[in-house]
Amino acid sequence: MSHQLPEALDQLSALLARLPGVGKRSALRLAFHILSRPREEAQQLSASLTGLHESVGFCERCGHLAGQALCDICLDPRRNPEVVCVVEGVPDLLAVEATGEFNGTYHVLHGVLSPLRGVGPSELRVAELVERVHGGGLQELILATPISVEGEATAAYIQSLVGREPKLLLSRIASGVPQGSELEYIDEATLGRALRARQAL
Amino acid sequence: MSHQLPEALDQLSALLARLPGVGKRSALRLAFHILSRPREEAQQLSASLTGLHESVGFCERCGHLAGQALCDICLDPRRNPEVVCVVEGVPDLLAVEATGEFNGTYHVLHGVLSPLRGVGPSELRVAELVERVHGGGLQELILATPISVEGEATAAYIQSLVGREPKLLLSRIASGVPQGSELEYIDEATLGRALRARQAL
Repeated sequence: MSHQLPEALDQLSALLARLPGVGKRSALRLAFHILSRPREEAQQLSASLTGLHESVGFCERCGHLAGQALCDICLDPRRNPEVVCVVEGVPDLLAVEATGEFNGTYHVLHGVLSPLRGVGPSELRVAELVERVHGGGLQELILATPISVEGEATAAYIQSLVGREPKLLLSRIASGVPQGSELEYIDEATLGRALRARQAL
Repeated sequence: MSHQLPEALDQLSALLARLPGVGKRSALRLAFHILSRPREEAQQLSASLTGLHESVGFCERCGHLAGQALCDICLDPRRNPEVVCVVEGVPDLLAVEATGEFNGTYHVLHGVLSPLRGVGPSELRVAELVERVHGGGLQELILATPISVEGEATAAYIQSLVGREPKLLLSRIASGVPQGSELEYIDEATLGRALRARQAL
């Protein structure tokens, strides 16, 4: 393109393009949108970003959002601390909570391994997880990272670290045809997986 | 959901959800992502937003990006100032430029009419366009707003304002089957339009 964009626009769109699911083109579109809206809206967004990390705290044990040292779930005496569900992020934790099917506790990794995006084990709360496991008292670790290349790699990595821990059951959430799906519309990988993981009735 | 999110997260995700193409769910996901990344990244984004409006200027005549009062295109003596292409935003202008097919000048509306999102004529550079038209000297006004409900409404609105201007040719970009498309995969509305707008050979 013959027309150079102003540096401020270039810079903003480069920063927006770092966000997950935002490509270069849509980042530029977002930057232009922000520019086309009143200045006050950009200021509000800017202010909201400035204080974010200071005003949101995480549970020291599981990594969930917390107003104090431990989160509501870790502090809840009705929850089983011996069963720990490992998830990528807080939204996944909330999704599991929404099922109403889980009575254990969590470990939030705050990401998954992604060599392409420069995310290694030290960027995740993996050391804290290993420490929890070695601390003893755990009965089951449910690996509920996403069913994706990165999610599977992360689950495999955790398995390599704690898979030989005595008396600890390691499990992985089931993958297969989602509820309400027609088989003909399901991608081959998922359907193949559902066949291989078939269960006796 | 039984777990209330911290207000800072709620606020950030509400602001992000205002961006085009960002729904409530993905806004929350973006907010969590920003939170899971180092504090410095949020600060960079915040700083980039603060100065944006100050450091980017627009052409007084056409609304394109400009480092001075008028943009490079309006100042270019090789461009035809009598043919004006009306676009929604700067990215659309750049897209038309990239075709290399247009030698006229532009008028950037900085949006399209959208009653649902509270965007009326006064939010757009419509008055400036009418003024340009009334100033005289225009030969053709090409309405290149998007082929969408909002884009069509905006084009129709502009037509209602300047359609009776003597000696001004009003035109609309063609809509039809895009290059390289199989007819069987094209949506019905587009195909119907392509049929109705068929051209004699």
